[in-house]
Amino acid sequence: MRKHLLMVLLLAAAVMAGLSAQAAGEIQGSSAMPVQAQPKYVFMFIGDGMSHVQINAAQVLKGSNEKGKLSLKPLTFTSFPVLGLQTTYDATSFCPDSASTATSLSSGYKTHSGTLGLGIDKQMLGKTIAEQVKEQKGWKVGIVSTVTLNHATPAAYYAHVPSRNSYYDIGLQMVQSGFDYFGGGAINKADDGGKKSIYTLLEEAGYLVTDDADQIRNLSSASGKVYAQSPRLQDSGSMPYALDMGFEDIGLELFVQKGIEVLDNPNGFFMMVESGKIDWACHANDAAAEIYDLLAFDKSIDVALAFAQKHPEETLIVVTGDHETGGMTIGYAGTGYSTAFDILDAQKLSYIAFDEKFTALQKQNPSLRFEQAMALVEADFGLVAPGKNTANKALVLSALEYSKLEASFKQAMLPSKQRDGSDQAYLLYGGYNPFSVTLTHILNNKAGIGWTSYSHTGTPVGVYAYGSGSELFSGSYDNTEVYAKLKQLTGIV
Amino acid sequence: MRKHLLMVLLLAAAVMAGLSAQAAGEIQGSSAMPVQAQPKYVFMFIGDGMSHVQINAAQVLKGSNEKGKLSLKPLTFTSFPVLGLQTTYDATSFCPDSASTATSLSSGYKTHSGTLGLGIDKQMLGKTIAEQVKEQKGWKVGIVSTVTLNHATPAAYYAHVPSRNSYYDIGLQMVQSGFDYFGGGAINKADDGGKKSIYTLLEEAGYLVTDDADQIRNLSSASGKVYAQSPRLQDSGSMPYALDMGFEDIGLELFVQKGIEVLDNPNGFFMMVESGKIDWACHANDAAAEIYDLLAFDKSIDVALAFAQKHPEETLIVVTGDHETGGMTIGYAGTGYSTAFDILDAQKLSYIAFDEKFTALQKQNPSLRFEQAMALVEADFGLVAPGKNTANKALVLSALEYSKLEASFKQAMLPSKQRDGSDQAYLLYGGYNPFSVTLTHILNNKAGIGWTSYSHTGTPVGVYAYGSGSELFSGSYDNTEVYAKLKQLTGIV
Repeated sequence: MRKHLLMVLLLAAAVMAGLSAQAAGEIQGSSAMPVQAQPKYVFMFIGDGMSHVQINAAQVLKGSNEKGKLSLKPLTFTSFPVLGLQTTYDATSFCPDSASTATSLSSGYKTHSGTLGLGIDKQMLGKTIAEQVKEQKGWKVGIVSTVTLNHATPAAYYAHVPSRNSYYDIGLQMVQSGFDYFGGGAINKADDGGKKSIYTLLEEAGYLVTDDADQIRNLSSASGKVYAQSPRLQDSGSMPYALDMGFEDIGLELFVQKGIEVLDNPNGFFMMVESGKIDWACHANDAAAEIYDLLAFDKSIDVALAFAQKHPEETLIVVTGDHETGGMTIGYAGTGYSTAFDILDAQKLSYIAFDEKFTALQKQNPSLRFEQAMALVEADFGLVAPGKNTANKALVLSALEYSKLEASFKQAMLPSKQRDGSDQAYLLYGGYNPFSVTLTHILNNKAGIGWTSYSHTGTPVGVYAYGSGSELFSGSYDNTEVYAKLKQLTGIV
Repeated sequence: MRKHLLMVLLLAAAVMAGLSAQAAGEIQGSSAMPVQAQPKYVFMFIGDGMSHVQINAAQVLKGSNEKGKLSLKPLTFTSFPVLGLQTTYDATSFCPDSASTATSLSSGYKTHSGTLGLGIDKQMLGKTIAEQVKEQKGWKVGIVSTVTLNHATPAAYYAHVPSRNSYYDIGLQMVQSGFDYFGGGAINKADDGGKKSIYTLLEEAGYLVTDDADQIRNLSSASGKVYAQSPRLQDSGSMPYALDMGFEDIGLELFVQKGIEVLDNPNGFFMMVESGKIDWACHANDAAAEIYDLLAFDKSIDVALAFAQKHPEETLIVVTGDHETGGMTIGYAGTGYSTAFDILDAQKLSYIAFDEKFTALQKQNPSLRFEQAMALVEADFGLVAPGKNTANKALVLSALEYSKLEASFKQAMLPSKQRDGSDQAYLLYGGYNPFSVTLTHILNNKAGIGWTSYSHTGTPVGVYAYGSGSELFSGSYDNTEVYAKLKQLTGIV
């Protein structure tokens, strides 16, 4: 008992030493802080394009809007005890890229927008945290993403290429990584137009490659190395948006659960989980699609938390974003101090799922009139023409909104090449289908949500941490420090 | 020595207990964390309307934009060791008001937008942190603001009124507060159109009331109770924007320095310092005015930090915002992934100072032509007509920008009542002078800065803390918890 007390006190003294080093302002030099914790199960959750506004929008949507008693619904990860804030600029832009920012998170240095796992002169600067824990500590490694597994963020944990667009090369490096579990989306350009498929190469390397729902549900520690692909794919080989999923779909939560089962071993494991379509929805300025993917992301963190609670001294969970996307705000000039997030309930599908329906309708009926398209709008977004009756008056379009929507419809009915290519048109539509992006703009604005961009922005992003060594993630720092902290905690050299 | 070691270890154990209470997820119940620190000098700095984007914009402006070597310039308070994040919604809005949010910060409860120091049923729920440390502990209290001293944020520390617009009543409560130092802006509606002036009442209550620069510079601990008002006032009785200040003006920094000298005493003091025009500039979507006021705010924090370093065991500095304003982002649809903050250097004055010059010009020449006004635009914003030569090509207006500016000029030349009152015009101009708000929009957008609103928004805001008891401000919590933490640390009951 006495020995135990002494241990506690010595540990406490070490923590105190760390705190006073922090208090002296040495927040960048994390090596100043002695660390006792040595987690052997590390989860790195990355909400692509996710910053405080995306997170708080989910908390507002699920909270109470009752006047006088407003409240937010905390998420699992916003309830974590440790909070940090990371700056996200890369070597070439304050509005950075996912390849460079994910490289900073995975490998601890800044690089050019578009570059993966190499420095600003395209030189090899070191292996990723995932590669190192595998090589040095014999940990198993899992990579999960809602988008393609050779997309920028997942690739930043195993690939080293000058351009994030070298999908086939990245795929080859995926095979070479020897990582133990890949789950979620497909492989982009898997055969690069005629080469040997990355899927085939994975199978030849001993991976079980499957997109069979039952087979995925039956994965276990006995499955060996696995590539588990969503049975249903949506845009660019990604998993469907949570908003578009049905009972039969496999959500991110299950890919994380199965990852834990495949990876669990006495040495330890590292799992990176990306929710990549938070970013895609924010690029398209579609708040509902973004929020439901973020809520699904939070549910997948519940799975990791349940594991952590079974291994409390040995598990670390870090949740962060790589950058913000879209310049999203809770607040819009046209709605002032009001918000009405319940309006988002009227949106039944993501912008991309709507695009598919709308395009099909256009093909059926090339002379489709706006009034006819409004039937689809009412069904999927709840919005109705001025003067028309509907249960929720807030969903009636103003004359200005109606005319904007009609103008966007006319653009959408033109072949892409004949559409307005002016700067003004880009500001309105950002290269998206003019009709659907105008619909999400109108619905979001009515809810009190604003957007400034179709690209990434320079707002810092939060870091939420739980478990063994989580204290190290407290405070303000640069994204490269996330790697430094993981390196320190995992004891790699 | 041994006794000292034991003390350190016991203290460390207490901190450890706190950390593990946090780790258990009890982040809301700050009372679970035993606190040894008892600061007796407490600084509460509030950047009105300031969230992460406003802060990072200042770091980007002062950082390096050299390709391949981008860097941010950290501010004094962003280098503080402790970081938290507070949610800001009030009882009636997720895009809250300064009166209600400042009440949450000063007094620990939620209330209606517009209400100061009273609950949602306009009932008295308790005294403010400032009133309590004065009454219970005999501390001196100082209230500093760049806007009027009976404006919402400063008033939330001494007033209890159903409406923030009851300026005269708030002024009366200012006199009754018996606080020791007021510094910065004027008193709004000081005589309420014929009543006895609040200034007179302050003098009758024994205050030295001065707006004399020399007298302010000579303030000291021997000055007694003081109301020190900026010798030069700008819009609505506020201090001038930092961007508009000259050598002769007294900046926020000196008001804080003099406050320390007036308040310093062995019992202790509490000083609230508000930078209120960060908010006003963000309402008007004027990034340059916002950033320079934020940098001046940071310089005023340097003064507090110098004091803290002389009294390291006894001083706590907390820096936060009350809410975000404007939905500001670093990133704009028209500039994509590029930023060019150096463009902001071309802006020589705030939107409000420009309005004054433009209005004077209009009076001189009621038939002013747009081409003539462009001379003023070039001088004060650096922007020139399409095709015109200028040193920085980025400042040449595009045809689209030029036509938008011309349309805004035509609106600005009309008497207010004849201007376009449509929703579309509100989206463009937000009730501001159409010409100047279009100028800041264009310049900000060219720099890569976007705005979504002329109002407050629902994004959470950071909390930066330094010194005695600062650890308590780590993590995620609601704005009401800021009060709870201060209450705990100051030991009021």
